[in-house]
Amino acid sequence: MTIELSAEISALLKDGLDLIPTIAQDVASGEVLMMAYMSRESLAITVDTGRATYWSRSRNELWEKGATSGHTQKVISISLDCDGDALLLQVEQVGAACHTGDRTCFHTKISI
Amino acid sequence: MTIELSAEISALLKDGLDLIPTIAQDVASGEVLMMAYMSRESLAITVDTGRATYWSRSRNELWEKGATSGHTQKVISISLDCDGDALLLQVEQVGAACHTGDRTCFHTKISI
Repeated sequence: MTIELSAEISALLKDGLDLIPTIAQDVASGEVLMMAYMSRESLAITVDTGRATYWSRSRNELWEKGATSGHTQKVISISLDCDGDALLLQVEQVGAACHTGDRTCFHTKISI
Repeated sequence: MTIELSAEISALLKDGLDLIPTIAQDVASGEVLMMAYMSRESLAITVDTGRATYWSRSRNELWEKGATSGHTQKVISISLDCDGDALLLQVEQVGAACHTGDRTCFHTKISI
């Protein structure tokens, strides 16, 4: 079974955009946890289930965050940016967002 | 004159990555302001100047944020994610981040 994105949401997305860069932010702390990609189908699933589901570019498949690790993301809100080509999720993160065990994937500081 | 990215930073980036999705977050409020792309050169300029400089995919040129609007971003910190293919900037945003005049580009809510 394929879940399709509603025409209403689809119309908001930039034409021809297959994979949508998606930022996950901790709704409580404001911390930016990760950036991954959503396909239109994974966005539809996310809207339907309230669980963040991405498209894995390395495995080329749908990727429900935390399905194996238990580190799920309950989606509180979804926002689209002004030109319809990026998404921001506010989530309740269970455990670590990063596969390294860190709370956030953005753990490498660059000196400036 | 071209500013080149240091070998040290370059080694942290994913091989073959030309344009790096970059999230700008307000350092004071934690609000996610925008997502844009950096080339390796624009990252080098950002590191060098402390002013967020992106690569405009529509104009195909370097884009110093706020150079025309005055809505500059002073970069406080730069973090790279665990797989070296996304950047997070914490910035002091002058004025609105969005060209629409909104504080953040993520101003379109999707109902869930």
